[in-house]
Amino acid sequence: MENIKAYVQEHKDRFINELVELLKIPSVSADTAYSHDVFETADAVKASLEKAGCDFVEICETPGYPIVYGEKIIDKSLPTVLVYGHYDVQPPDPMELWTSPPFEPVIKKTEIHPEGAIFARGSCDDKGQMYMHVKALEYMVQSNTLPCNVKFMIEGEEEIGSKSLSWFVERNQEKLKNDVILISDTGMISNQQPSITTGLRGLSYVEVEVTGPNRDLHSGLYGGAVANPINALAKMIASLHDENNHITIPGFYDNVVELSLEERAEMAKAPFNLDNYKKALDLNDVYGESGYVTNERNSIRPTLDVNGIWGGYTGEGAKTVIASKAFAKISMRLVPNQDWEEITELFTKHFTSLAPAGVTVKVKPHHGGQGYVTPIDSIGYKAANMAYTETFGVPAIPVRSGGSIPIVALFEKELKSKTILMGFGLDSDAIHSPNEHFGIFNYLKGIETIPLFYKYFVELSK
Amino acid sequence: MENIKAYVQEHKDRFINELVELLKIPSVSADTAYSHDVFETADAVKASLEKAGCDFVEICETPGYPIVYGEKIIDKSLPTVLVYGHYDVQPPDPMELWTSPPFEPVIKKTEIHPEGAIFARGSCDDKGQMYMHVKALEYMVQSNTLPCNVKFMIEGEEEIGSKSLSWFVERNQEKLKNDVILISDTGMISNQQPSITTGLRGLSYVEVEVTGPNRDLHSGLYGGAVANPINALAKMIASLHDENNHITIPGFYDNVVELSLEERAEMAKAPFNLDNYKKALDLNDVYGESGYVTNERNSIRPTLDVNGIWGGYTGEGAKTVIASKAFAKISMRLVPNQDWEEITELFTKHFTSLAPAGVTVKVKPHHGGQGYVTPIDSIGYKAANMAYTETFGVPAIPVRSGGSIPIVALFEKELKSKTILMGFGLDSDAIHSPNEHFGIFNYLKGIETIPLFYKYFVELSK
Repeated sequence: MENIKAYVQEHKDRFINELVELLKIPSVSADTAYSHDVFETADAVKASLEKAGCDFVEICETPGYPIVYGEKIIDKSLPTVLVYGHYDVQPPDPMELWTSPPFEPVIKKTEIHPEGAIFARGSCDDKGQMYMHVKALEYMVQSNTLPCNVKFMIEGEEEIGSKSLSWFVERNQEKLKNDVILISDTGMISNQQPSITTGLRGLSYVEVEVTGPNRDLHSGLYGGAVANPINALAKMIASLHDENNHITIPGFYDNVVELSLEERAEMAKAPFNLDNYKKALDLNDVYGESGYVTNERNSIRPTLDVNGIWGGYTGEGAKTVIASKAFAKISMRLVPNQDWEEITELFTKHFTSLAPAGVTVKVKPHHGGQGYVTPIDSIGYKAANMAYTETFGVPAIPVRSGGSIPIVALFEKELKSKTILMGFGLDSDAIHSPNEHFGIFNYLKGIETIPLFYKYFVELSK
Repeated sequence: MENIKAYVQEHKDRFINELVELLKIPSVSADTAYSHDVFETADAVKASLEKAGCDFVEICETPGYPIVYGEKIIDKSLPTVLVYGHYDVQPPDPMELWTSPPFEPVIKKTEIHPEGAIFARGSCDDKGQMYMHVKALEYMVQSNTLPCNVKFMIEGEEEIGSKSLSWFVERNQEKLKNDVILISDTGMISNQQPSITTGLRGLSYVEVEVTGPNRDLHSGLYGGAVANPINALAKMIASLHDENNHITIPGFYDNVVELSLEERAEMAKAPFNLDNYKKALDLNDVYGESGYVTNERNSIRPTLDVNGIWGGYTGEGAKTVIASKAFAKISMRLVPNQDWEEITELFTKHFTSLAPAGVTVKVKPHHGGQGYVTPIDSIGYKAANMAYTETFGVPAIPVRSGGSIPIVALFEKELKSKTILMGFGLDSDAIHSPNEHFGIFNYLKGIETIPLFYKYFVELSK
């Protein structure tokens, strides 16, 4: 497929400019202040699919943000690939840490991206990776090399739990019928070493509220005599891990699958340099569950992290106050066989029981999703590996990722088909962080690799 | 002194209106955004002292906010009373909990204040209580009953540690020379039972910063593999108290004076109803150091409270992020003989040592002050007690307060004179909280009582 290389070279400036336009729309699904922009982004995605060559595209209303559905059916007897992606993005804050505004994309060269990377919220997660598929379709239509049917399902609530997506999938099983689901919303090891994500962690995300006195109090007149909600919250959070950094919630580990030493040895083969890892994050040391190494702690082991905490006086200077309330957002990453709803219940029961005298505790579940493991002997996996091998010159390594794409488990349950996670991002892309970026190399390489997946998937399906 | 009663009745509307005007200026010293208002308030105080009858008033520049100095010297051979107060106020937030805007004073009736109370930030702490002294002077000058010399020193940095005040006092010992210092910046037991604060707690206020990775990270990709600064901060804060709620900082209690059982029995005589206390705060129970009751925990015992905490994502919805930094404001209330600077060092040393692998910790001291105990056999205390007894019909009860007025210890050291704390506020006035208020009864009663202090102090000094 030399033509795709040439096509990408010929059109790369337009490909970049089109993505830049999409990145300018601040489609932050977590904050209703951006609601209008999220809808506008859906319209832009619809237009791009029509332009790329879909026969039919529609904006599907849901209880939440709409899902953009598009398809090109060339022959009902041929296989069908369902492409999933999301057009919503994470909130950009902390704004002050961005070196350029999150919704004013700029291309900057970095050590890892000598050809330049697009800096903008959503550049990698997931607008950039989603748009690779739109441009890959454009090529296959233009060059008349689309070997099968293709469907697109691009949602706008991935960053807030994909609630409307499950609602939509459950109601459109026939429309979404497919032979394989293709998603680019993960990363690879490096630009020299592609990898395919074969496992994902599940997620349970909750918000807790600790209430003490019915009003803020003067810490001099009341300090020591009433429970301080912030101190209480800190104590409760601290007790969620023991001295070995095991999570102390009763029953939390009951369904966790322990990997065999062989499997762990296989994992250990993936290239990893602890010193570089620490250096990249300016860490004096790593930290985590006893008995596991870094690459296990962030992939095959469940974890609990506070994602946000606030209470009392946080302004300039000093205020001697005992706050009435303290809050925290807490998320747990789960591994296959841990049911996120059960874990959410276990957390709620346990955390509420931790409340000391003088405070009351509320736990509000936000959202969650199941973990997932995909077999590496499937046609889909093989086709993806062949595509990577051809464009990168080396085969892809299967890796377990610590991230969560809850809907992958949903797809398997509702649509009965396997998902292939063809990620082209890098850990250093700073997704969910200030200065998120996506390499030009990665973006174009993705557009170049995806048509090969279609080719080999259809060949292997014969 | 029947005349004072009549004078207050005749002028009470004006007294209230003048205070209301002063309360409209948002003199928040902790937030530089209000800087202009703080200076404006100093000017207003200067004008009020001139109007009340001071011979000489000046705005004294300092490294920070100015100090308003005023005096009326009638006879150098007579005693001199130095009145101290502060014209700055606490930050008003959380704004959303105010039932009326903090700087738009309104008079509302409450159960405790059937005659109405002025609702505004600073109404009690300390503009209202400070202004009682201005109006008391006005009466004594108008009625020609001022029996001695009087000096006023009203500062604008009390809520942020009175840094410039100590600078000023050290440089003006002759100018500030006095026989007794009179302060109304504390409370009394109830409108039926006056009390005089004989002890104050010291204070050490610090801000801590915990830094983990050099940027916010995706909690899926990194969760479990790096130390989370928020979890680490929670763990460190939790470890500052043991299971008996004793503070675990090594050496923290070394200089704490244990009260005798007799002294504790004496304290226990002050009227206190635990059920009402809990009811007033909607608490299911009180909480504090084992071995001490509520009124001891908040007065004769040192404490440690988190006054504010923040880190990570605190906006609407969910963000799966591991923050790079987490912060907390922590204050310790100290008892006599605990040196605040030594305690600040002990805290810093200990807290820094608590940092787990993978995070670094910074401790930034904000400010502090020493505790204080005043003898009840002094002329000043006796004069105050006689004044209360005359206006309230019952003698005042000596009480140890949990609050801190760090400069009281400074005055004793630099000016060699004792301070009498004639407070007219109530615990329910919500100082430092939303809906701070000051009873009209208390305000007028203060104006009525203060001249009697002057009368008896001069008589007892003969």
